[in-house]
Amino acid sequence: MFVLEKKDINTKARAGVLKTPHGDIPTPVFMPVGTQASVKTLSPEDLKDAGAEIVLANTYHLFLRPGEDLILKAGGLHGFSGWGKPFLTDSGGYQVFRLAELRKINDEGVTFQSHIDGSYHFFSPESVVDIQRKLGTDIMMVLDECSPYPVDLTAAANANRRTIDWAKRAKKQFDDTEPPLGEKQAVFGIVQGSVYPEIRKESAKRLIDIGFDGYAIGGLAVGEPKEQMFEITEITTEILPENQARYLMGVGKPEDILNAISLGVDMFDCVIPTRNARNGTFFTSQGKVVIKNNKYFDDFEPIDNNCNCYTCRNFSRAYLRHLFKSEEILGLRLASLHNIHFFMNMVKQARIQILNGSFADWKKQFLSNIQN
Amino acid sequence: MFVLEKKDINTKARAGVLKTPHGDIPTPVFMPVGTQASVKTLSPEDLKDAGAEIVLANTYHLFLRPGEDLILKAGGLHGFSGWGKPFLTDSGGYQVFRLAELRKINDEGVTFQSHIDGSYHFFSPESVVDIQRKLGTDIMMVLDECSPYPVDLTAAANANRRTIDWAKRAKKQFDDTEPPLGEKQAVFGIVQGSVYPEIRKESAKRLIDIGFDGYAIGGLAVGEPKEQMFEITEITTEILPENQARYLMGVGKPEDILNAISLGVDMFDCVIPTRNARNGTFFTSQGKVVIKNNKYFDDFEPIDNNCNCYTCRNFSRAYLRHLFKSEEILGLRLASLHNIHFFMNMVKQARIQILNGSFADWKKQFLSNIQN
Repeated sequence: MFVLEKKDINTKARAGVLKTPHGDIPTPVFMPVGTQASVKTLSPEDLKDAGAEIVLANTYHLFLRPGEDLILKAGGLHGFSGWGKPFLTDSGGYQVFRLAELRKINDEGVTFQSHIDGSYHFFSPESVVDIQRKLGTDIMMVLDECSPYPVDLTAAANANRRTIDWAKRAKKQFDDTEPPLGEKQAVFGIVQGSVYPEIRKESAKRLIDIGFDGYAIGGLAVGEPKEQMFEITEITTEILPENQARYLMGVGKPEDILNAISLGVDMFDCVIPTRNARNGTFFTSQGKVVIKNNKYFDDFEPIDNNCNCYTCRNFSRAYLRHLFKSEEILGLRLASLHNIHFFMNMVKQARIQILNGSFADWKKQFLSNIQN
Repeated sequence: MFVLEKKDINTKARAGVLKTPHGDIPTPVFMPVGTQASVKTLSPEDLKDAGAEIVLANTYHLFLRPGEDLILKAGGLHGFSGWGKPFLTDSGGYQVFRLAELRKINDEGVTFQSHIDGSYHFFSPESVVDIQRKLGTDIMMVLDECSPYPVDLTAAANANRRTIDWAKRAKKQFDDTEPPLGEKQAVFGIVQGSVYPEIRKESAKRLIDIGFDGYAIGGLAVGEPKEQMFEITEITTEILPENQARYLMGVGKPEDILNAISLGVDMFDCVIPTRNARNGTFFTSQGKVVIKNNKYFDDFEPIDNNCNCYTCRNFSRAYLRHLFKSEEILGLRLASLHNIHFFMNMVKQARIQILNGSFADWKKQFLSNIQN
């Protein structure tokens, strides 16, 4: 499902295309987060305007509400949400460990209480595949055990052992079942192992032996120092197969994404563009604009003169500041649209530069500009 | 500025055109409320999709934040907000009496404390004209004294006496000043007098003597019985000049609007479509849909099969219910867009029926359908 088009000469960056039943996705790619089958504040049309190619939704959240059976009846996530382009769904492993109450884990799976109503539920590697089958997602993720940070080596090794065991069971369930909506689905494995290189290498190798359509690097960006995040990322991408996509989960800031692209990562997701938007922080080619600052009171320039998104084409900083100061909901949307456009435009630029052989120089300049 | 095109045979309904520098407005018309220069949750593009022709903004709110000088610098409300079609601005009289703290009124004007930060301000009939000059509004309203309900006859007469005195001063200020943005502005007087026919008649006659571009009926829909609201409306429209526009302020529900159209009213504004939208109530040709109700859980029909708005073209009741149950902001917008479209479509239908001579029958059928 992944075609590698070009490898950068100066870095490990790659340009490729990820093929799914709902469209081809040029990589590197950033995936806006639509946890509950909606990227917060944005309609499918807004997402297209912002240049989004694929949206990430969440198995845990959608299983709890509205339930995978309803979504299947609606024609899967695409029919349900009106977003006709590809979806990737996270397995819910991370959310079970972070959001759910009173979770009890054993080798069979994990029992947890809903954060919404306290009801009890059980996830197994098999059931999480079954749920994602019904969601009709283009790319599903296996159930993993995501260690917190910090975690000691023994606990990280045990979590990885279980993650690998679950990955095997998930792959078997995937192979033994058919997509109920008829469209071919893909499944990615998730490398775990916290900040321990030996466990990470073992994790990656065992997953490759099982054989997935692509590989994610999970359990990073959970509080560890940045250097360790990049070290582990590099160790992992060196092992992962060149002709398959690599996805660094939950990353991140613009500089983190570009640095990880340099290390050979193809796919990213993060709530930063939408969450920061709702706080009034706009990403621009010249650094962040915190729109509530007094200096924007009578600034009639667009957020970013180099941006051609709907927000920048139509509204001034002064008006956007007014919307945020007046707590007008429109502000949240215009900021979200702009920030998603910024992230999408950044990875699209990165791709062009990789194809042109000029990625390293461009990246240096881009990072220098945004760190003004 | 108003061209009367057709009078209905069976009722007092009228079809006309209101001419402004930012466009002609077919009447009857409904004006979505954009208090702070933003119709809550909707972009200018959404408003156009919903069929809006003119937006109502509020002098009191915009005076306090961001201030009329900033808006003037931005090219008036049109340049500031990106809504290039007409604006009407309410004078702020209603808000000073309802929202502001510690207001002290005398014949000169009204001193009040901001509901935002407690700062002290003074509005006079003249200053309110000056502010609206700077806002660049197409249609400004004079400062009035809006009595609460109930109010005794003496107090209502005194409030009206002051309203008329202020209207004279406002008109003089209007005549003595020029639009700073160069585009001709219009000014409407506001009939007061609570539920007392004799005061209302006196109020209307005195305003007509002063001479305005159009006339509003204020101080209704503030708690009085519906029959009194319609009685006073009818008494007033009988006196108002046929060749000028009549605006019933703050009304209302679909049935109230259609009944007031029957009595010769041309213009309406109300927060109902947007406020109810944010509570998950959708207006439809078959009555209201309260989207959080369980029965819509697996209802894959659009909100209204007879509606061609963006929401109804693209989303099911089941998905909209999911958005509201999950507290996704997109739901607020999709509901607002639909409800504004419903109100706009209703008054546009009313206009067509008036022009066709079939308004009374159509209205009866329409009201019967929505009261299902």
